[in-house]
Amino acid sequence: MAYYATTVAKLIEEFQKMPGIGHKSAQRLAFYVLGLSTERANGLVQAIQEAKQKVGYCSICCNLTDEDPCEICADTYRDFSTICVVESPADVVAFEKTKEYKGVYHVLHGAISPMDGIKPDDIKIKELVARVAKGDIKEVILATDTDVEGEATGMYIARLLTPFGIKITRIAKGIPIGGDIEYADEITLSKALENRVDLS
Amino acid sequence: MAYYATTVAKLIEEFQKMPGIGHKSAQRLAFYVLGLSTERANGLVQAIQEAKQKVGYCSICCNLTDEDPCEICADTYRDFSTICVVESPADVVAFEKTKEYKGVYHVLHGAISPMDGIKPDDIKIKELVARVAKGDIKEVILATDTDVEGEATGMYIARLLTPFGIKITRIAKGIPIGGDIEYADEITLSKALENRVDLS
Repeated sequence: MAYYATTVAKLIEEFQKMPGIGHKSAQRLAFYVLGLSTERANGLVQAIQEAKQKVGYCSICCNLTDEDPCEICADTYRDFSTICVVESPADVVAFEKTKEYKGVYHVLHGAISPMDGIKPDDIKIKELVARVAKGDIKEVILATDTDVEGEATGMYIARLLTPFGIKITRIAKGIPIGGDIEYADEITLSKALENRVDLS
Repeated sequence: MAYYATTVAKLIEEFQKMPGIGHKSAQRLAFYVLGLSTERANGLVQAIQEAKQKVGYCSICCNLTDEDPCEICADTYRDFSTICVVESPADVVAFEKTKEYKGVYHVLHGAISPMDGIKPDDIKIKELVARVAKGDIKEVILATDTDVEGEATGMYIARLLTPFGIKITRIAKGIPIGGDIEYADEITLSKALENRVDLS
Protein backbone atom coordinates (compact mmCIF):
# COMPACT_ATOMS: atom_id res chain seq x y z
CA MET A 1 0.00 0.00 0.00
CA ALA A 2 0.96 3.62 -0.42
CA TYR A 3 2.35 5.24 2.72
CA TYR A 4 0.84 8.63 1.97
CA ALA A 5 -2.44 9.95 0.61
CA THR A 6 -2.05 10.49 -3.16
CA THR A 7 -2.12 14.28 -3.00
CA VAL A 8 0.45 14.33 -0.22
CA ALA A 9 2.67 11.90 -2.14
CA LYS A 10 2.37 14.10 -5.25
CA LEU A 11 3.46 17.16 -3.27
CA ILE A 12 6.42 15.32 -1.73
CA GLU A 13 7.40 14.16 -5.21
CA GLU A 14 7.34 17.72 -6.56
CA PHE A 15 9.63 18.92 -3.77
CA GLN A 16 11.92 15.94 -4.25
CA LYS A 17 12.58 17.03 -7.84
CA MET A 18 14.24 20.18 -6.51
CA PRO A 19 18.04 20.34 -6.35
CA GLY A 20 19.56 19.24 -3.04
CA ILE A 21 16.22 18.04 -1.67
CA GLY A 22 16.14 14.37 -0.67
CA HIS A 23 13.12 12.37 0.40
CA LYS A 24 13.25 13.38 4.08
CA SER A 25 13.54 17.09 3.26
CA ALA A 26 10.76 16.83 0.67
CA GLN A 27 8.57 15.24 3.32
CA ARG A 28 9.35 18.04 5.76
CA LEU A 29 8.60 20.73 3.14
CA ALA A 30 5.31 19.05 2.19
CA PHE A 31 4.20 18.96 5.83
CA TYR A 32 5.23 22.59 6.15
CA VAL A 33 3.04 23.53 3.18
CA LEU A 34 0.13 21.46 4.52
CA GLY A 35 0.46 23.26 7.83
CA LEU A 36 0.38 26.73 6.26
CA SER A 37 -2.69 28.93 6.55
CA THR A 38 -4.59 29.22 3.25
CA GLU A 39 -3.39 32.81 3.02
CA ARG A 40 0.29 31.91 3.37
CA ALA A 41 -0.03 28.97 0.98
CA ASN A 42 -1.54 31.34 -1.57
CA GLY A 43 1.41 33.67 -0.99
CA LEU A 44 3.78 30.86 -1.91
CA VAL A 45 1.79 29.86 -5.00
CA GLN A 46 1.58 33.50 -6.09
CA ALA A 47 5.32 34.04 -5.66
CA ILE A 48 6.00 31.04 -7.91
CA GLN A 49 3.46 32.13 -10.53
CA GLU A 50 4.57 35.77 -10.57
CA ALA A 51 8.22 34.83 -10.82
CA LYS A 52 7.48 32.50 -13.72
CA GLN A 53 5.36 35.13 -15.50
CA LYS A 54 7.38 38.27 -14.93
CA VAL A 55 11.00 37.20 -14.72
CA GLY A 56 13.00 37.06 -17.91
CA TYR A 57 16.49 37.85 -19.19
CA CYS A 58 17.81 41.42 -19.29
CA SER A 59 18.27 42.26 -22.98
CA ILE A 60 21.70 43.71 -22.19
CA CYS A 61 23.41 41.52 -19.57
CA CYS A 62 21.14 38.41 -19.64
CA ASN A 63 20.69 38.53 -15.84
CA LEU A 64 17.29 37.50 -14.48
CA THR A 65 15.07 40.53 -14.09
CA ASP A 66 11.44 41.60 -13.95
CA GLU A 67 12.07 44.83 -15.81
CA ASP A 68 14.14 45.34 -18.95
CA PRO A 69 16.88 46.53 -18.83
CA CYS A 70 17.66 45.23 -15.34
CA GLU A 71 18.33 47.49 -12.38
CA ILE A 72 22.10 47.32 -12.85
CA CYS A 73 22.08 48.00 -16.60
CA ALA A 74 19.63 50.87 -16.03
CA ASP A 75 21.86 52.45 -13.37
CA THR A 76 23.61 55.41 -15.03
CA TYR A 77 26.24 55.53 -12.26
CA ARG A 78 27.77 52.21 -13.36
CA ASP A 79 30.83 51.95 -15.57
CA PHE A 80 29.48 50.48 -18.80
CA SER A 81 32.94 50.03 -20.31
CA THR A 82 33.78 47.16 -17.95
CA ILE A 83 31.93 43.85 -18.17
CA CYS A 84 32.29 41.13 -15.54
CA VAL A 85 31.36 37.77 -17.07
CA VAL A 86 29.80 35.29 -14.62
CA GLU A 87 28.07 31.94 -14.87
CA SER A 88 24.93 32.60 -12.84
CA PRO A 89 22.68 35.31 -11.34
CA ALA A 90 23.87 34.19 -7.90
CA ASP A 91 27.42 35.19 -8.92
CA VAL A 92 26.20 38.72 -9.69
CA VAL A 93 24.80 38.89 -6.17
CA ALA A 94 28.15 37.69 -4.76
CA PHE A 95 30.01 40.50 -6.58
CA GLU A 96 27.41 43.13 -5.69
CA LYS A 97 27.83 42.23 -2.03
CA THR A 98 31.50 43.22 -2.18
CA LYS A 99 30.31 46.79 -2.96
CA GLU A 100 33.64 47.18 -4.79
CA TYR A 101 32.67 46.53 -8.37
CA LYS A 102 31.18 49.45 -10.28
CA GLY A 103 31.10 47.96 -13.78
CA VAL A 104 28.33 45.91 -15.35
CA TYR A 105 27.83 42.16 -15.80
CA HIS A 106 27.18 39.50 -18.36
CA VAL A 107 25.46 36.34 -17.14
CA LEU A 108 26.26 33.23 -19.20
CA HIS A 109 23.72 30.95 -17.48
CA GLY A 110 26.08 28.01 -17.33
CA ALA A 111 29.51 26.97 -18.52
CA ILE A 112 30.65 24.96 -21.52
CA SER A 113 30.60 21.30 -20.52
CA PRO A 114 30.93 18.61 -23.19
CA MET A 115 30.30 15.99 -20.48
CA ASP A 116 26.84 17.43 -19.81
CA GLY A 117 26.22 18.24 -23.46
CA ILE A 118 26.45 22.02 -22.91
CA LYS A 119 27.95 23.62 -26.01
CA PRO A 120 29.05 27.26 -26.43
CA ASP A 121 25.76 28.03 -28.19
CA ASP A 122 23.76 26.78 -25.21
CA ILE A 123 24.99 29.61 -22.99
CA LYS A 124 24.92 33.39 -23.53
CA ILE A 125 28.29 33.72 -25.29
CA LYS A 126 26.93 35.02 -28.61
CA GLU A 127 25.18 37.82 -26.69
CA LEU A 128 28.48 38.77 -25.01
CA VAL A 129 30.36 38.88 -28.31
CA ALA A 130 27.61 41.02 -29.89
CA ARG A 131 27.83 43.36 -26.91
CA VAL A 132 31.60 43.74 -27.24
CA ALA A 133 31.30 44.13 -31.04
CA LYS A 134 29.12 47.22 -30.51
CA GLY A 135 32.22 48.95 -29.14
CA ASP A 136 32.70 51.20 -26.06
CA ILE A 137 33.95 48.22 -24.00
CA LYS A 138 37.41 48.66 -22.45
CA GLU A 139 37.73 45.56 -20.30
CA VAL A 140 36.10 42.15 -19.94
CA ILE A 141 36.74 40.45 -16.58
CA LEU A 142 36.26 36.69 -16.79
CA ALA A 143 34.78 35.59 -13.46
CA THR A 144 33.56 32.13 -14.36
CA ASP A 145 34.04 29.42 -11.72
CA THR A 146 37.54 28.05 -11.19
CA ASP A 147 36.52 24.44 -11.94
CA VAL A 148 37.37 22.71 -15.24
CA GLU A 149 34.21 23.90 -17.02
CA GLY A 150 34.58 27.47 -15.78
CA GLU A 151 38.25 27.64 -16.82
CA ALA A 152 37.49 26.19 -20.25
CA THR A 153 34.63 28.65 -20.75
CA GLY A 154 36.88 31.53 -19.72
CA MET A 155 39.60 30.46 -22.15
CA TYR A 156 37.06 30.01 -24.96
CA ILE A 157 35.63 33.49 -24.44
CA ALA A 158 39.10 35.05 -24.16
CA ARG A 159 39.99 33.58 -27.55
CA LEU A 160 36.74 34.82 -29.11
CA LEU A 161 37.26 38.34 -27.80
CA THR A 162 40.97 38.73 -28.59
CA PRO A 163 40.30 40.15 -32.12
CA PHE A 164 38.50 43.14 -30.57
CA GLY A 165 41.77 44.35 -29.04
CA ILE A 166 40.24 45.09 -25.63
CA LYS A 167 41.66 44.26 -22.20
CA ILE A 168 40.64 40.74 -21.10
CA THR A 169 41.33 39.68 -17.51
CA ARG A 170 40.65 36.66 -15.31
CA ILE A 171 39.90 36.96 -11.57
CA ALA A 172 42.82 35.97 -9.33
CA LYS A 173 43.16 32.42 -8.06
CA GLY A 174 44.84 31.71 -4.73
CA ILE A 175 44.29 31.05 -1.03
CA PRO A 176 40.91 32.39 0.16
CA ILE A 177 41.08 35.10 2.83
CA GLY A 178 40.98 33.53 6.28
CA GLY A 179 42.12 30.31 4.64
CA ASP A 180 44.52 27.94 6.29
CA ILE A 181 47.58 27.15 4.16
CA GLU A 182 47.78 23.76 5.85
CA TYR A 183 44.39 22.76 4.47
CA ALA A 184 44.70 24.31 1.00
CA ASP A 185 44.71 21.74 -1.80
CA GLU A 186 47.88 21.37 -3.88
CA ILE A 187 46.50 22.93 -7.05
CA THR A 188 45.32 26.07 -5.24
CA LEU A 189 48.60 26.28 -3.38
CA SER A 190 50.73 25.98 -6.52
CA LYS A 191 48.50 28.57 -8.26
CA ALA A 192 48.96 30.88 -5.26
CA LEU A 193 52.72 30.40 -5.46
CA GLU A 194 52.78 30.97 -9.22
CA ASN A 195 50.77 34.18 -8.97
CA ARG A 196 52.66 35.55 -5.97
CA VAL A 197 52.64 39.33 -5.67
CA ASP A 198 55.78 41.42 -5.25
CA LEU A 199 55.63 43.44 -2.02
CA SER A 200 59.20 44.80 -2.16
CA MET B 1 20.32 48.61 -4.01
CA ALA B 2 18.50 45.29 -4.06
CA TYR B 3 20.58 42.38 -5.30
CA TYR B 4 17.66 40.61 -6.96
CA ALA B 5 14.66 41.65 -9.05
CA THR B 6 11.68 42.09 -6.67
CA THR B 7 9.80 39.02 -7.90
CA VAL B 8 12.91 36.85 -7.60
CA ALA B 9 13.59 38.20 -4.10
CA LYS B 10 9.97 37.46 -3.13
CA LEU B 11 10.30 33.87 -4.33
CA ILE B 12 13.59 33.38 -2.47
CA GLU B 13 11.95 34.79 0.65
CA GLU B 14 9.04 32.34 0.37
CA PHE B 15 11.44 29.40 0.13
CA GLN B 16 13.52 30.72 3.00
CA LYS B 17 10.50 30.51 5.30
CA MET B 18 10.52 26.73 4.86
CA PRO B 19 12.06 24.56 7.59
CA GLY B 20 15.73 23.72 7.11
CA ILE B 21 16.07 26.04 4.12
CA GLY B 22 18.71 28.75 4.51
CA HIS B 23 19.39 31.65 2.16
CA LYS B 24 21.68 29.74 -0.20
CA SER B 25 19.26 26.83 -0.53
CA ALA B 26 16.33 29.21 -1.03
CA GLN B 27 18.30 30.90 -3.81
CA ARG B 28 18.98 27.55 -5.45
CA LEU B 29 15.33 26.51 -5.22
CA ALA B 30 14.18 29.84 -6.68
CA PHE B 31 16.54 29.48 -9.65
CA TYR B 32 15.31 25.92 -10.08
CA VAL B 33 11.70 27.15 -10.25
CA LEU B 34 12.64 29.96 -12.64
CA GLY B 35 14.35 27.41 -14.86
CA LEU B 36 11.32 25.08 -14.99
CA SER B 37 9.18 24.84 -18.11
CA THR B 38 5.78 26.53 -17.70
CA GLU B 39 4.21 23.07 -17.66
CA ARG B 40 6.38 21.77 -14.84
CA ALA B 41 5.98 24.99 -12.84
CA ASN B 42 2.23 24.58 -13.16
CA GLY B 43 2.62 21.00 -11.94
CA LEU B 44 4.30 22.29 -8.79
CA VAL B 45 1.70 25.00 -8.19
CA GLN B 46 -1.09 22.50 -8.75
CA ALA B 47 0.42 19.99 -6.31
CA ILE B 48 0.53 22.69 -3.64
CA GLN B 49 -3.01 23.87 -4.31
CA GLU B 50 -4.50 20.37 -4.48
CA ALA B 51 -2.76 19.30 -1.30
CA LYS B 52 -4.06 22.40 0.50
CA GLN B 53 -7.60 21.87 -0.81
CA LYS B 54 -8.02 18.12 -0.49
CA VAL B 55 -5.88 17.06 2.44
CA GLY B 56 -7.44 17.02 5.88
CA TYR B 57 -7.45 14.94 9.06
CA CYS B 58 -8.84 11.41 9.10
CA SER B 59 -11.90 11.52 11.38
CA ILE B 60 -10.72 8.34 13.12
CA CYS B 61 -6.91 8.48 13.50
CA CYS B 62 -6.23 12.20 12.70
CA ASN B 63 -3.59 11.28 10.08
CA LEU B 64 -3.37 13.49 6.99
CA THR B 65 -5.54 12.08 4.22
CA ASP B 66 -7.41 13.06 1.08
CA GLU B 67 -10.26 10.64 1.74
CA ASP B 68 -12.09 10.03 5.02
CA PRO B 69 -11.50 7.61 6.67
CA CYS B 70 -7.88 7.28 5.60
CA GLU B 71 -6.57 4.26 3.72
CA ILE B 72 -5.32 2.59 6.92
CA CYS B 73 -8.53 3.11 8.91
CA ALA B 74 -10.55 1.89 5.89
CA ASP B 75 -8.46 -1.29 5.57
CA THR B 76 -10.58 -4.14 7.02
CA TYR B 77 -7.49 -6.37 7.37
CA ARG B 78 -6.00 -4.18 10.12
CA ASP B 79 -6.35 -4.94 13.79
CA PHE B 80 -8.57 -2.13 15.09
CA SER B 81 -8.12 -3.15 18.73
CA THR B 82 -4.49 -1.93 18.79
CA ILE B 83 -3.69 1.78 18.46
CA CYS B 84 -0.14 3.04 17.97
CA VAL B 85 0.07 6.67 19.12
CA VAL B 86 2.61 8.79 17.20
CA GLU B 87 3.48 12.48 16.97
CA SER B 88 3.41 13.01 13.20
CA PRO B 89 2.26 11.55 9.87
CA ALA B 90 5.93 10.87 9.05
CA ASP B 91 6.03 8.52 12.07
CA VAL B 92 3.15 6.52 10.59
CA VAL B 93 5.19 6.11 7.41
CA ALA B 94 8.18 4.93 9.46
CA PHE B 95 6.08 2.23 11.16
CA GLU B 96 4.38 1.20 7.91
CA LYS B 97 7.79 0.67 6.33
CA THR B 98 8.62 -1.98 8.94
CA LYS B 99 5.71 -4.01 7.46
CA GLU B 100 5.43 -5.56 10.95
CA TYR B 101 2.65 -3.52 12.49
CA LYS B 102 -0.90 -4.58 11.65
CA GLY B 103 -2.80 -2.35 14.09
CA VAL B 104 -4.04 1.19 13.49
CA TYR B 105 -2.63 4.60 14.44
CA HIS B 106 -3.45 7.82 16.21
CA VAL B 107 -1.57 10.92 15.08
CA LEU B 108 -1.19 13.58 17.79
CA HIS B 109 0.27 16.27 15.49
CA GLY B 110 2.87 17.35 18.01
CA ALA B 111 3.85 16.77 21.61
CA ILE B 112 3.06 18.61 24.81
CA SER B 113 5.71 21.32 25.24
CA PRO B 114 5.20 24.07 27.82
CA MET B 115 8.36 25.76 26.49
CA ASP B 116 6.76 26.19 23.06
CA GLY B 117 3.34 26.89 24.53
CA ILE B 118 1.89 23.58 23.29
CA LYS B 119 -0.70 22.38 25.80
CA PRO B 120 -2.48 18.96 25.85
CA ASP B 121 -5.51 20.56 24.17
CA ASP B 122 -3.38 21.77 21.24
CA ILE B 123 -2.70 18.23 20.06
CA LYS B 124 -5.10 15.37 19.26
CA ILE B 125 -5.27 13.84 22.76
CA LYS B 126 -9.01 14.43 23.29
CA GLU B 127 -9.68 12.54 20.06
CA LEU B 128 -7.60 9.59 21.31
CA VAL B 129 -9.43 9.45 24.65
CA ALA B 130 -12.80 9.59 22.86
CA ARG B 131 -11.67 6.75 20.63
CA VAL B 132 -10.64 4.58 23.57
CA ALA B 133 -13.82 5.49 25.46
CA LYS B 134 -15.90 3.99 22.64
CA GLY B 135 -14.54 0.59 23.66
CA ASP B 136 -13.17 -2.35 21.61
CA ILE B 137 -9.56 -1.19 22.17
CA LYS B 138 -7.25 -3.76 23.77
CA GLU B 139 -3.88 -2.02 23.62
CA VAL B 140 -2.50 1.47 23.15
CA ILE B 141 1.18 1.57 22.14
CA LEU B 142 2.78 4.91 22.97
CA ALA B 143 5.29 5.63 20.20
CA THR B 144 5.93 9.32 20.79
CA ASP B 145 9.53 10.51 20.36
CA THR B 146 12.03 9.65 23.09
CA ASP B 147 12.91 13.29 23.78
CA VAL B 148 11.65 15.17 26.86
CA GLU B 149 8.44 16.35 25.16
CA GLY B 150 7.67 12.93 23.70
CA GLU B 151 8.24 11.19 27.05
CA ALA B 152 6.08 13.71 28.91
CA THR B 153 3.31 13.36 26.32
CA GLY B 154 3.47 9.58 26.60
CA MET B 155 3.26 9.72 30.40
CA TYR B 156 0.37 12.19 30.25
CA ILE B 157 -1.62 9.96 27.88
CA ALA B 158 -0.83 6.82 29.91
CA ARG B 159 -2.30 8.49 33.00
CA LEU B 160 -5.40 9.62 31.10
CA LEU B 161 -6.03 6.14 29.71
CA THR B 162 -5.37 4.10 32.88
CA PRO B 163 -9.06 4.30 34.06
CA PHE B 164 -10.13 2.40 30.91
CA GLY B 165 -8.32 -0.71 32.14
CA ILE B 166 -6.69 -1.47 28.79
CA LYS B 167 -3.09 -2.48 28.09
CA ILE B 168 -0.86 0.57 27.67
CA THR B 169 2.69 0.06 26.39
CA ARG B 170 5.67 2.25 25.43
CA ILE B 171 8.05 1.34 22.57
CA ALA B 172 11.41 -0.03 23.75
CA LYS B 173 14.36 2.31 24.26
CA GLY B 174 17.91 1.09 23.76
CA ILE B 175 20.84 0.85 21.39
CA PRO B 176 19.71 1.19 17.75
CA ILE B 177 20.38 -1.84 15.54
CA GLY B 178 23.78 -1.48 13.88
CA GLY B 179 24.65 0.98 16.64
CA ASP B 180 28.08 1.17 18.17
CA ILE B 181 28.07 0.80 21.96
CA GLU B 182 31.20 2.95 22.11
CA TYR B 183 29.36 5.92 20.64
CA ALA B 184 26.04 5.49 22.44
CA ASP B 185 25.25 8.33 24.85
CA GLU B 186 25.09 7.54 28.57
CA ILE B 187 21.33 7.90 28.91
CA THR B 188 20.62 5.50 26.05
CA LEU B 189 23.18 3.08 27.41
CA SER B 190 21.78 3.10 30.94
CA LYS B 191 18.24 2.64 29.51
CA ALA B 192 19.51 -0.28 27.44
CA LEU B 193 21.05 -1.81 30.54
CA GLU B 194 17.94 -1.25 32.63
CA ASN B 195 15.68 -2.83 30.00
CA ARG B 196 17.98 -5.80 29.32
CA VAL B 197 16.25 -8.92 28.03
CA ASP B 198 16.69 -12.36 29.58
CA LEU B 199 18.07 -14.79 27.00
CA SER B 200 18.64 -17.77 29.34
